[in-house]
Amino acid sequence: MRKIVRFENNPPSFLSWASVGGYEERRGPLGEKFDFCDDTDRFGMPTWELAEGEMGRISLNLAMNKISCDPNTIDALLAGDLENQCVASSGGLYSFGIPYIGLYSACSTCTEALFLLSSLISKTEISVGATVTTSHNSAAERQFRTPIEYGGQRTPTAQWTATASGAFILGNGGKVKIKNGIIGKIIDGLTKDASNMGAAMARAAFDTFYTYFSLSDKPPRDFDCVVTGDLGSVGSAIFEELIEKEMPSSHIKHVDCGNLIYDKKNADIHSGASGCGCSASVLASHFLPLLESGSMKNILFMSTGALMSPSSVMQGQNILGIAPAIHISSE
Amino acid sequence: MRKIVRFENNPPSFLSWASVGGYEERRGPLGEKFDFCDDTDRFGMPTWELAEGEMGRISLNLAMNKISCDPNTIDALLAGDLENQCVASSGGLYSFGIPYIGLYSACSTCTEALFLLSSLISKTEISVGATVTTSHNSAAERQFRTPIEYGGQRTPTAQWTATASGAFILGNGGKVKIKNGIIGKIIDGLTKDASNMGAAMARAAFDTFYTYFSLSDKPPRDFDCVVTGDLGSVGSAIFEELIEKEMPSSHIKHVDCGNLIYDKKNADIHSGASGCGCSASVLASHFLPLLESGSMKNILFMSTGALMSPSSVMQGQNILGIAPAIHISSE
Repeated sequence: MRKIVRFENNPPSFLSWASVGGYEERRGPLGEKFDFCDDTDRFGMPTWELAEGEMGRISLNLAMNKISCDPNTIDALLAGDLENQCVASSGGLYSFGIPYIGLYSACSTCTEALFLLSSLISKTEISVGATVTTSHNSAAERQFRTPIEYGGQRTPTAQWTATASGAFILGNGGKVKIKNGIIGKIIDGLTKDASNMGAAMARAAFDTFYTYFSLSDKPPRDFDCVVTGDLGSVGSAIFEELIEKEMPSSHIKHVDCGNLIYDKKNADIHSGASGCGCSASVLASHFLPLLESGSMKNILFMSTGALMSPSSVMQGQNILGIAPAIHISSE
Repeated sequence: MRKIVRFENNPPSFLSWASVGGYEERRGPLGEKFDFCDDTDRFGMPTWELAEGEMGRISLNLAMNKISCDPNTIDALLAGDLENQCVASSGGLYSFGIPYIGLYSACSTCTEALFLLSSLISKTEISVGATVTTSHNSAAERQFRTPIEYGGQRTPTAQWTATASGAFILGNGGKVKIKNGIIGKIIDGLTKDASNMGAAMARAAFDTFYTYFSLSDKPPRDFDCVVTGDLGSVGSAIFEELIEKEMPSSHIKHVDCGNLIYDKKNADIHSGASGCGCSASVLASHFLPLLESGSMKNILFMSTGALMSPSSVMQGQNILGIAPAIHISSE
């Protein structure tokens, strides 16, 4: 049975955070808000796969530096990415020596990690913890589709995997808190089209949105907005249509991280950004500063994931969607 | 900083469990204790990848049947496997409609899942939850090495990925409880040899063993044994040598799940079993019945994982090891 897991009695808060991106991310509307961008997308590494791991390492290092935090004071590190066997996370982050929990929930891993870490910090001996999620366009393209040198034509519904990472350090005493959260449910995306991930995830996002507000004491109008992870323009339209049809009186503003990272004039982007680093870097660069400053008070943050692999797509399986959510508040 | 996370005040217990295997598993010493074995290794599916998912589905179904449990009464399902993007778990388990948390910690995922679920059940609104971890020899061989039809020669240090699944339902009121646990730390295995995973994981297992007993009030002699996940005979020898050298007075019996599943006369098995389903199916078929009957009182259960991918190995990266642990008790 789906339940809202509540942390209100001892809510974990964001002590520090950092966002890292590549060339396209620096050129986009949030570029100046990223803590670090590497125009080569290589982060000093000889392969795209190692570059992704190094990007994660840099993001956590930056977040620790901001609060002069030593890795020995961090009790748990929850991380994940899109590379096969999540080697960007394990390989990039092992040098910190922080107790490690590996996750895989596709592009929804950022919210999944923040939910699980909130449970640990709010309720157990774990007092300070971190999450890191990454994605790298070139690593993802050659793993899921074709090497970028191949120059394959992308469809209008396709999304652009963000070269981005977001790191968060949670503990007690910060202004912006995670008040509660809900685990995602796997929903059949009813599509086999790996070039239309937004459509595959939109129903899962709506399912979580609908369930959360069926269970929550706080109505949608009390939230500044609901933030989805990477539905892009195609998936966002489906998500909003479902809300309009099923919950017409919710009157909630919807913002999708996948629509915020890139300049819409850039034709290559098509339906928007995606990837484990998409919602993570947008939370770190855009929403947390707004919550910290008081410009926003409450958001429902819901990264979205498409559960598939090149094999599952080639074997004709439908793409499944999932969307865990957390209530982030500066009230 | 590494900490023991304690559930003693409200310890989650095993309400039900089930193990599923294939042809080689049925022929092994634990074969009769498995709840279900399919001699075709196909579980009615057209591909090995789908067979792995179906094996996971069957194991959870069996565990639910034993206690007449409806999927709607399960609040969380934590699962993972070795397939790229963990599609065996998401694809095999989504039809239950249980709120889902995807994990990736290689062959250590069973213990990682039980640790995280224990935290949720002991401390939050989640009152009943399940974990499922799977591995399939034929799916793993063609993904990580070569298709089995190729007939490649295996080295003496190589392990045999178990075609196996273990499902566990945790809640309150059972006899066998999870009293506490510790998160694993990533330790460089100091090897690049993907045919010697046991060696790559042995140091991580020792690191957790050493750290756990440095922090625990309960000394090693109070445990019936320490159970490692899948070090196999090669990794077990290294693990035991490290204990003998660094903690000579611990006098603890060590049992490795990878040494229990197959008959040693079967030459193809080489160093022993491995895979996410190895420690899970041995816990379900062998150790939980011993704990339930009172033949054993306390075990430190520590699945072991090798964090690598075919790409990371081909790109010359070392194989990293990890080993989370939980204290399972019937006292």
